Amino acid sequence: MKTTALIMAGGRGERFWPKSRKNLPKQFLSLTGDGKTMIQLTIERILPLVAMEDIFISTNKDYKSLVLEQLPGIPRENILCEPCSRNTAPCMGLGAVHIAKKYEDATMVVLPSDHLIRYNSMFINTLKDASEIAQKDSNLVTIGITPDYPETGYGYIKFNPDICEGRSFIVDRFVEKPSLEVAKEYLATDEYLWNSGMFVWKVSSILQKMKELLPEIYEGLLKIQNAIGTPEEEEILEKEFHDLQSISIDYGIMEKSKNIYTLPGTFGWDDVGSWLAVKRIKKSNEFGNVVNGNVITIETKNCIIEGSKKLIATVGLENLIIVDTQDATLICEKDSAGDIKKILENLKICNRNEYL
Amino acid sequence: MKTTALIMAGGRGERFWPKSRKNLPKQFLSLTGDGKTMIQLTIERILPLVAMEDIFISTNKDYKSLVLEQLPGIPRENILCEPCSRNTAPCMGLGAVHIAKKYEDATMVVLPSDHLIRYNSMFINTLKDASEIAQKDSNLVTIGITPDYPETGYGYIKFNPDICEGRSFIVDRFVEKPSLEVAKEYLATDEYLWNSGMFVWKVSSILQKMKELLPEIYEGLLKIQNAIGTPEEEEILEKEFHDLQSISIDYGIMEKSKNIYTLPGTFGWDDVGSWLAVKRIKKSNEFGNVVNGNVITIETKNCIIEGSKKLIATVGLENLIIVDTQDATLICEKDSAGDIKKILENLKICNRNEYL
Repeated sequence: MKTTALIMAGGRGERFWPKSRKNLPKQFLSLTGDGKTMIQLTIERILPLVAMEDIFISTNKDYKSLVLEQLPGIPRENILCEPCSRNTAPCMGLGAVHIAKKYEDATMVVLPSDHLIRYNSMFINTLKDASEIAQKDSNLVTIGITPDYPETGYGYIKFNPDICEGRSFIVDRFVEKPSLEVAKEYLATDEYLWNSGMFVWKVSSILQKMKELLPEIYEGLLKIQNAIGTPEEEEILEKEFHDLQSISIDYGIMEKSKNIYTLPGTFGWDDVGSWLAVKRIKKSNEFGNVVNGNVITIETKNCIIEGSKKLIATVGLENLIIVDTQDATLICEKDSAGDIKKILENLKICNRNEYL
Repeated sequence: MKTTALIMAGGRGERFWPKSRKNLPKQFLSLTGDGKTMIQLTIERILPLVAMEDIFISTNKDYKSLVLEQLPGIPRENILCEPCSRNTAPCMGLGAVHIAKKYEDATMVVLPSDHLIRYNSMFINTLKDASEIAQKDSNLVTIGITPDYPETGYGYIKFNPDICEGRSFIVDRFVEKPSLEVAKEYLATDEYLWNSGMFVWKVSSILQKMKELLPEIYEGLLKIQNAIGTPEEEEILEKEFHDLQSISIDYGIMEKSKNIYTLPGTFGWDDVGSWLAVKRIKKSNEFGNVVNGNVITIETKNCIIEGSKKLIATVGLENLIIVDTQDATLICEKDSAGDIKKILENLKICNRNEYL
């Protein structure tokens, strides 16, 4: 059975402001220092498993030209532009009907475009194992991440350690972002994984599930599928997609299904959720600083400094994030990284859209 | 007797980097927010006492065009360019011989060009009082500043409270920058003033003192004086000034003379010695921030932010100095303001003169 991939690249992440902008979100940025953008790395990573012509990109109109520019090898017809944002269930459904149009049935790997993975071959092996489970019956597989610490910013997957299938376990339930206390309990039990948002299933399995659990969405998707390749394709997509219920795949399908399996992933996953991640993914110098660009540091420790051409000179600083771009400079205490969104709120209120 | 002034504007202060540069030192910057530069404020301040045509500016070749641009009212021949730096005694001597050439004798007020004064009329009154003392015999008068706190960055003047002349006291001795402990002792005695570097004397008095105490400098100055207005003026200035001993007026004259008087000044003096001074001279907002330019602050307290066109966004900061200029941005912990010079050292070592 063909293995295909759907890469989700419609996100408008704000947490990498001022480097990420409304018209240049995180997946199109290079954050690793090797010059490759997050989405380029994502594609490169799965090429041992999925041929370029079988990779589909889900994005929106605003980012179509960025996708074309950064991923010239992807067939144009594989770039699926959502006319509006309807959360992950319609997004993955749109991918599924396109793949079904091309291959009738196929294995479908669904991946975010803005995560990093350290051990690519282990990741590929995990996806291969997941594909095996997915090809059996109509199992849906979600890739879980073995947690390192009690993170409160992710959802968790509770699995049943007594019911396994190959290297995967059956899922008991999905749980929302926990409090620190609860997260610590999860970690202690060894029966919880982080929900990474990566899935493997057969196209036929996910469409069958949608028919059962999200029948209205399924009907709309069928109309869209029938129009693919016709002169009305765009018009029908526009109309039907707009009318689809906005619902996440977790809430719409995964939490309501029985035959969900999860594989504990240990391939060095990082969702690169904020500027703080740069410290994890790039090498620090002897003072604990991660420095890039035209920068002079004096008595400066444990800072993340993303400079550009302009000289950034720091004196006596500790635990700051400094990001310089052409029209805006961010200076943020590390513990306040979550408040970067307040700047964007402020800019929105003041109608200063040029900085968003 | 005519009252003249010599404004010293040759300094190359580095403590306002990156706003001050080798080719734009502090005296030519506007730091008060009213658009006027320090030297413009200095001139404006003394106009009630000294006519424009009697104000002499001592500077160096590099800054001549800045002086001409910022002070168009000063006669061109009153702009005295030192061919090289020889400390304050030769600088003031050069001013004295120029004034003597014009008026034979006159009262001469010597002022730095980069200090701020809050109460101008009180300042003028102090200078008037000082002029009276200076015109009597050949007294040299230095303006002292009544200290507010035990500053360790200034020299002090010890006066004798039992010997006064009008509002002035006779000086016992000049003392170097003290330790904090010693500075506290000085403050407790009420017999010490800060040495502000402002002087009042007759031209004849200071030249006579130079003849006595610095005879070689005096001889050189006489040759320079004789050449003023002749075709050889520049050539002789170049040669003679170069050969003058480099020595401060404090060390060369004041500390070795008997008839030195000091007036305790209480006119809101500030030497604007570093970025920290901005907090004293500009109004803070309710969060203790002094903010200028295109700036958004989130959870930011007690910071000095000098922005420009580029957006500066701060999150969760406290006690920082942030200065943005076209080609360089400084981010400095307030307590580390003294280490800004280390950036300049670093730039010099690396030959990055474009930033100096």
